[in-house]
Amino acid sequence: MDLTTLIGMLAAACTTFAFFPQAYKIYKTKRTQDLSVPMYVIFSIGILLWLIYGIIINNLPIICANAITFIFCVYILAMMVKNKGEIK
Amino acid sequence: MDLTTLIGMLAAACTTFAFFPQAYKIYKTKRTQDLSVPMYVIFSIGILLWLIYGIIINNLPIICANAITFIFCVYILAMMVKNKGEIK
Repeated sequence: MDLTTLIGMLAAACTTFAFFPQAYKIYKTKRTQDLSVPMYVIFSIGILLWLIYGIIINNLPIICANAITFIFCVYILAMMVKNKGEIK
Repeated sequence: MDLTTLIGMLAAACTTFAFFPQAYKIYKTKRTQDLSVPMYVIFSIGILLWLIYGIIINNLPIICANAITFIFCVYILAMMVKNKGEIK
C-alpha cells in the first residue's frame, strides 16, 4: 500500500470512528441538549448519499466507512428524538 | 454532469455544511457540554488527513469540502476549550 492510500484510509478511519465517543457519551449521560438536530439530520442524509455513491461506483471502503458512520448517526438522532419527547 | 457525480457532490455538500448549524448553535448558546471532545479531536485529525490526501491526489472537491469542514471543527473545538476553561 502506498503512502497516499494509507493517508486516505487513516482519514476515513478517523472521520468514521470519531462518532463512537459521541454516541458513547450520549449512552452514558443520556444528554443531547447541546447537540444540533439539523446537523445530524443533514449529516445523516449526506452519509446515506455517500453510501449510495459508494454502491454505484462499487467502492468497498466508501460503503463500509459510511455504513458504520450511518449507524452511529442514527443512534445519536434516535436519542435526540427520545430526549425531545421527554422534555415535552 | 452525470447522476453519480451529482450524488457524490450532494453527499459532500451535506457532510460539509452539516457542521454549520452545530457551530451556529454553539455561537448562540455558548454551550458545548453535551458534545464529545474526543469526537471533535479525532474528526478534526481525520479532516486534516482528508485535506492532505486531497492535496496529494490534486482533487479540488476533496480539498474544498474538507477545508470548510475543518474551519467549522476548529471553531467548535475552540469553543469547547473556552468552555472547559470557564467551568474550572
